[in-house]
Amino acid sequence: MTDDVLGALGDVPPGEMRAYLHRMADWIADYRETIETRTIVPHIAPGEVAAGTSARLPDHAEPMSRILGDLDTVVMPGVVHWGHPAFLGYFGSTSNGPALLGELAAAALNVSAMTWKTSPAATELEGVVLEWIRELIGLPPAFTGVVYDTASVATLHALAAAREVSGSEIRARGVAGRADVPLHRVYTSDQAHSSVAKAMVVLGLGEENVVRVPTDDAFRLDARALRAAMEADIALGFRPTAVVATIGTTSTASVDPVADIAELCRTNGVWLHVDAAYGGAFAALPEGRWVMRGVEQADSFVVNPHKWLFVPLDFSALFTRHPDALRSVFSLTPEYLRGDATADGTVVNYMDYGIQLGRRFRALKAWMTFRALGRDGLISRIREHCRLASLLADRATQHPGIALAAPPMMAIVCFRFEPAGTSADETDALNEAVAEAVNASGMAYVTHTRLRGVSCVRVGIGNILTTERHVEQVWSVVLSEAQRLGALR
Amino acid sequence: MTDDVLGALGDVPPGEMRAYLHRMADWIADYRETIETRTIVPHIAPGEVAAGTSARLPDHAEPMSRILGDLDTVVMPGVVHWGHPAFLGYFGSTSNGPALLGELAAAALNVSAMTWKTSPAATELEGVVLEWIRELIGLPPAFTGVVYDTASVATLHALAAAREVSGSEIRARGVAGRADVPLHRVYTSDQAHSSVAKAMVVLGLGEENVVRVPTDDAFRLDARALRAAMEADIALGFRPTAVVATIGTTSTASVDPVADIAELCRTNGVWLHVDAAYGGAFAALPEGRWVMRGVEQADSFVVNPHKWLFVPLDFSALFTRHPDALRSVFSLTPEYLRGDATADGTVVNYMDYGIQLGRRFRALKAWMTFRALGRDGLISRIREHCRLASLLADRATQHPGIALAAPPMMAIVCFRFEPAGTSADETDALNEAVAEAVNASGMAYVTHTRLRGVSCVRVGIGNILTTERHVEQVWSVVLSEAQRLGALR
Repeated sequence: MTDDVLGALGDVPPGEMRAYLHRMADWIADYRETIETRTIVPHIAPGEVAAGTSARLPDHAEPMSRILGDLDTVVMPGVVHWGHPAFLGYFGSTSNGPALLGELAAAALNVSAMTWKTSPAATELEGVVLEWIRELIGLPPAFTGVVYDTASVATLHALAAAREVSGSEIRARGVAGRADVPLHRVYTSDQAHSSVAKAMVVLGLGEENVVRVPTDDAFRLDARALRAAMEADIALGFRPTAVVATIGTTSTASVDPVADIAELCRTNGVWLHVDAAYGGAFAALPEGRWVMRGVEQADSFVVNPHKWLFVPLDFSALFTRHPDALRSVFSLTPEYLRGDATADGTVVNYMDYGIQLGRRFRALKAWMTFRALGRDGLISRIREHCRLASLLADRATQHPGIALAAPPMMAIVCFRFEPAGTSADETDALNEAVAEAVNASGMAYVTHTRLRGVSCVRVGIGNILTTERHVEQVWSVVLSEAQRLGALR
Repeated sequence: MTDDVLGALGDVPPGEMRAYLHRMADWIADYRETIETRTIVPHIAPGEVAAGTSARLPDHAEPMSRILGDLDTVVMPGVVHWGHPAFLGYFGSTSNGPALLGELAAAALNVSAMTWKTSPAATELEGVVLEWIRELIGLPPAFTGVVYDTASVATLHALAAAREVSGSEIRARGVAGRADVPLHRVYTSDQAHSSVAKAMVVLGLGEENVVRVPTDDAFRLDARALRAAMEADIALGFRPTAVVATIGTTSTASVDPVADIAELCRTNGVWLHVDAAYGGAFAALPEGRWVMRGVEQADSFVVNPHKWLFVPLDFSALFTRHPDALRSVFSLTPEYLRGDATADGTVVNYMDYGIQLGRRFRALKAWMTFRALGRDGLISRIREHCRLASLLADRATQHPGIALAAPPMMAIVCFRFEPAGTSADETDALNEAVAEAVNASGMAYVTHTRLRGVSCVRVGIGNILTTERHVEQVWSVVLSEAQRLGALR
């Protein structure tokens, strides 16, 4: 491989580009093969990565091989290895071979799936994989989908549709300065994702109009409390606009009673959005399908294949029974796209359903992964993650001085060290310290969260590479760090 | 390469994965090498791509080599080749070798750059490339940046900050049902991007509160008309909240008089957002730096490296002199991220500046491209695109029966066939038909747009592979299709 810089114009010469691509293929293969040997969290201080590269844009072209070399010397020392099989933070990692190949192909094509005409393949495969997902998790055919980057963006779109269908021509006229627009309220549990509040802020409805409904001892939204909250608000003149129910909350994977909530929504004419960003995948399992009870009555539903369906970041699927409502908020075709935006109903132009015009070919990686794993492969892996989580929960339950902090659900386990004779604050600090120490060890990765004001250690399993051996490894690091810190005595 | 399906659990076996990666490396190299021989727009009817793949998720794993084979048989027949050097639609395509290598590495790492702790390298390289971009285009050091997917999202964030700093605690309380919140108005030219209206819709401020200010004969916002509009609105009790000035409008790349607009904004305490999604790149050239006049007074500024700085979709950089305002709207740290979200000011957590929590490692592709091309390489390519556009504009000017529809600017040319003795409507139809026919030929790609209600053909040059020969090819297809259709007589 030569070290030629790029000429004054044009791209990397073809022969060289091919060589670099093969070098990158080996780099990726090496990375995947050695990922287990890596220190998960680098020992690095703020500023070290930046210090390894010029603070100023280089004046002249640098040799490609030097830049590729810097991947190892500058970038990798600052990488947290999310794909490591002992990385059990958040929901694990969705990296896998087939999806990675799909990402590479999509990057080479670099199309924008704003309209069918500008990207027939990206548009149609998006429709295909959305149908696959819908059917896999048991959403009725009345739901049609659209892909966004994240569930935060999907929920924002769902609540924008809810705001619109509440009347008052909000798209056109907005909500400010109008006596005829009521105070919209959105209800969600005290365990719900921060994206609900962020959406309300963005939509101009106000963070304080998110009503946090209490949850029961399994962290599920209390439907009676919801009813009471809605009735009290209605009496005060507020307008209940939407409820966001969660299937698989971020901290504990708890599942709200969607059927009960749906009934309340129907009675009061309220939009029901279901945040199944994580838990939707669980519904692919026959034994997990119960989480979908009542979902057929929802108005919108989001599931993130980039959380637990083996599609890498980013890929979030919003489904709704009211695509027209979504389109009525977001369709706005500029002049230079009128020729591309066939509006005769024969094709879908996904730009009509969202804020973004530029849309990557996200469907390709999903299409490749889902085919490479198949329905049974998806199911067996998700089921295995649940088994591993349940194994870890058993360990926690059986160990003196450790208590489960929440009922284990799906592939999420929250547990808490409770050393005798230790104050609540000190216990919190110890639990947080254990999580920090586990991560600092470089051999395992967990998160800590707070449940009802109490700190605990949280594990999420979702990586295709994670096996029982890795869970044992994480557990052993957790125990030894806890012992070292005095959280276990 | 074997055709083994994936086992019941786990990923593609390492040896096979390496082979598939090399197969993909060759596929990408072949694609880049042969892209010029492709039919740009496929001859395909709606539904054909979808018909080539199962409507139902396959029950069992399919062989990886079959899936990779389907890239050629199912996907490629439905791909519009945005990276073809004769694709001169929109702003051209930002595909290039170094960026592609960066995309591949980022896909392999699959980290989420929500906080520094979860992704030190992604966070710090984001800061580094943002600084490079800022300095390259001459934005003062007072501006700090954040990367989003698209300019639509960036502008939404900028206007959310503008809404917040206008007072009234809008984040917390929203704008609905409040007598103390005025009717916010946002001003932008009649040539501005549709994202301004979409942002106003989302923010709950209403599409009809976007005031479309007329433009002069070069499609530049008329500052006197802006002043008059603002004064009239103030007299009526509206609150001018923001002005969105454009550097490089989508249709004609026109440049609003930012300095004049800035003065009006300062006088009236109005947030100035500059949409330089396309035109910001032009400021990298000494001869293009004039477009930045007045920008130092802007409150926020967006430039899309995925439009003309050779960074593939998606990558949009928002800069602001008020990062605290942005953070005051969007910072919301959930419990399970508190441990990661160091708030001592030593590091940046980009999740604090946006709607999305999940954030891809977008900086890597930018870092690799900018180094591989260098400042002079970026400048020489952008300059060459302008030269090619100007060459095309000359051709149009000199050809009887063709008139420029707008002053050529940057690398955008709009021209119009004006056959003698043809009605305005018929002339519009002919111009649209020419653009359609050019695209249907498969040998060239252009867009059509409407300027002051009149249709014309629009060309945008931005692809690293586009040379004079390709521009000649496009021009020759345009002329022959125009002749065939009777647009040229």
